[in-house]
Amino acid sequence: MTANDSSPAYCIIGLGLIGGSLMRDLAARGETVYGYNRSTSGARTAIKEGFDASDRLDKTLIRANEDHALIVLAVPMHAVGEVLDAVVEYAPNCGITDVVSVKTAVYEEIDARGLKTRYVGGHPMAGTQHSGWKASETGMFKRAAWVITYDYAAECEAAGEEIDSSWIELFKTVTRMVEKLKAEAVPALVTNHDAAVARVSHLPHVLAAALSVVGDNGGVLAQSLAAGSFKSATRVATTAPDLQRAMCESNATALVGALDEFIAELAKARDDLASETPQIKELIEAGHRTRIRLEARSGASKDSVSPVKISSRPVLRLHPGGPNWVRQLSQTEDIGGRIEIF
Amino acid sequence: MTANDSSPAYCIIGLGLIGGSLMRDLAARGETVYGYNRSTSGARTAIKEGFDASDRLDKTLIRANEDHALIVLAVPMHAVGEVLDAVVEYAPNCGITDVVSVKTAVYEEIDARGLKTRYVGGHPMAGTQHSGWKASETGMFKRAAWVITYDYAAECEAAGEEIDSSWIELFKTVTRMVEKLKAEAVPALVTNHDAAVARVSHLPHVLAAALSVVGDNGGVLAQSLAAGSFKSATRVATTAPDLQRAMCESNATALVGALDEFIAELAKARDDLASETPQIKELIEAGHRTRIRLEARSGASKDSVSPVKISSRPVLRLHPGGPNWVRQLSQTEDIGGRIEIF
Repeated sequence: MTANDSSPAYCIIGLGLIGGSLMRDLAARGETVYGYNRSTSGARTAIKEGFDASDRLDKTLIRANEDHALIVLAVPMHAVGEVLDAVVEYAPNCGITDVVSVKTAVYEEIDARGLKTRYVGGHPMAGTQHSGWKASETGMFKRAAWVITYDYAAECEAAGEEIDSSWIELFKTVTRMVEKLKAEAVPALVTNHDAAVARVSHLPHVLAAALSVVGDNGGVLAQSLAAGSFKSATRVATTAPDLQRAMCESNATALVGALDEFIAELAKARDDLASETPQIKELIEAGHRTRIRLEARSGASKDSVSPVKISSRPVLRLHPGGPNWVRQLSQTEDIGGRIEIF
Repeated sequence: MTANDSSPAYCIIGLGLIGGSLMRDLAARGETVYGYNRSTSGARTAIKEGFDASDRLDKTLIRANEDHALIVLAVPMHAVGEVLDAVVEYAPNCGITDVVSVKTAVYEEIDARGLKTRYVGGHPMAGTQHSGWKASETGMFKRAAWVITYDYAAECEAAGEEIDSSWIELFKTVTRMVEKLKAEAVPALVTNHDAAVARVSHLPHVLAAALSVVGDNGGVLAQSLAAGSFKSATRVATTAPDLQRAMCESNATALVGALDEFIAELAKARDDLASETPQIKELIEAGHRTRIRLEARSGASKDSVSPVKISSRPVLRLHPGGPNWVRQLSQTEDIGGRIEIF
């Protein structure tokens, strides 16, 4: 890192919905930020809007290497391996993080290239159904959970090995970036992350697709009558299909588990409704109870009367590298909490 | 009806989310509107806000009978029979419509009391997850589909019998009420309505409940990471459980059919994801295609540059009682269209 490691340069690879929004927020704060976009037109649009963008991956990474920049991978899963090969070649000095919606598959690519000590994974739980630079916006990550993975540190602890000090610095750098974006840094191991997002992100995409199809099968009358509940539940089906497939297919094992659980719930409700006295008491009441409970656990309360939004995620103030800090990360993960570093 | 049958008095039985919003809109237009609410506190709140409300069903219906008012049933399905008994006793002169989210079950209650010639069913495809008078608001029905049933007319046609002229007047009165609310009158037979809403309204409620449960099973980390896609898809799970049960249980046959279709889609996707080369191409692409298509068929386009919102539902201008008018209703239903009367 350069002189002041709390403000490194940021090099964003992929300027789509998430990468573009990240560039906007960091630039708005006056940080040094530049990036690469595969499509020339996307890069050109960003440049026209005053951002520092390029459609040359090699040049962008060489510059990042000179700056000791933090590299943020913001490309779809299928492009991660190829980009990492270029990082190995052109930017051997740089720490790496990412914003990809699956973490095990990324970690396998990292491990295959011996990059574990240079990598802290990330995943912002934010976005819309739109994609590309044109869909990017400032403030997208405000109060959103931003997962930060710490598998390398946990592996060192388990093996009784010392954690590389440069990795600890990288962990700080990534966490500080999250704090700068006003997001909330939630620590998680990659497998736990993938199991959680299979339930709360990838499963909703599959359901949205299936519900769209079943609604469509009802013909134009059903489509004409589709209103709020249907539209809310199917909104994310309009996300670009290749992005949805990338998420679901690269997290297939966890997603199949979530689907099995979901299908079992539906099958039970179906039988209750098909019985002589049709009823759906159990599922509707359980759904209501759990959804109300969720409101209190998933970020700032909307009903707060305070002008300052208070996060409902418990916070742990952490000193990376300090005594027991990896165990503290694990404990914070267990309660879905967030960290602040000092 | 009184002198001017295009502006009858309106008597709303049940001042909850829908009934209350209806009262607000009609009152704001200067129509004569009054209503009954079972809970004294709800009625009292409406009165305090300047509305003409009562917690006495008999008195309210006697008044409606004197006014030849249009009675609008806005109570949950399980209360419909009891209210209809009171209508038979206290308001034998009045036409009846309703806003209940199932139509076959209501029509059976109507038929059991020999009220077919006095009934035109209705169902506004509008609302929120909240309930009760306090959740009611003006403008809720603007541009929403409002189903109007015409089974009695279709039955007369099929039997070669003449349609009671008072029913035709009632059909006009109900349609005009819908027009006054700036909603769009979509004709449908009760069984077709129930099959359609099983897909686009009741199924989303079941899915929201099941997804809430599966998300909750993931523990606090999953709940902490739940963001836009999960929250959109589960929003309606916060609807009062008894209202959700009333909808689903009174439309159980159609809902079981929709659930079977949905489960089959999911099971197929599950197997595709569990295969050696995990993929979910077919479902994601079909979901994307159908959801994009829906945008064009379910009301005003949000992307229109015109300041005047144009409905995307085809419109038929209809003269109730005129030649072929029942066939025209049926044709309009087949294309999910709306009617305007003259």
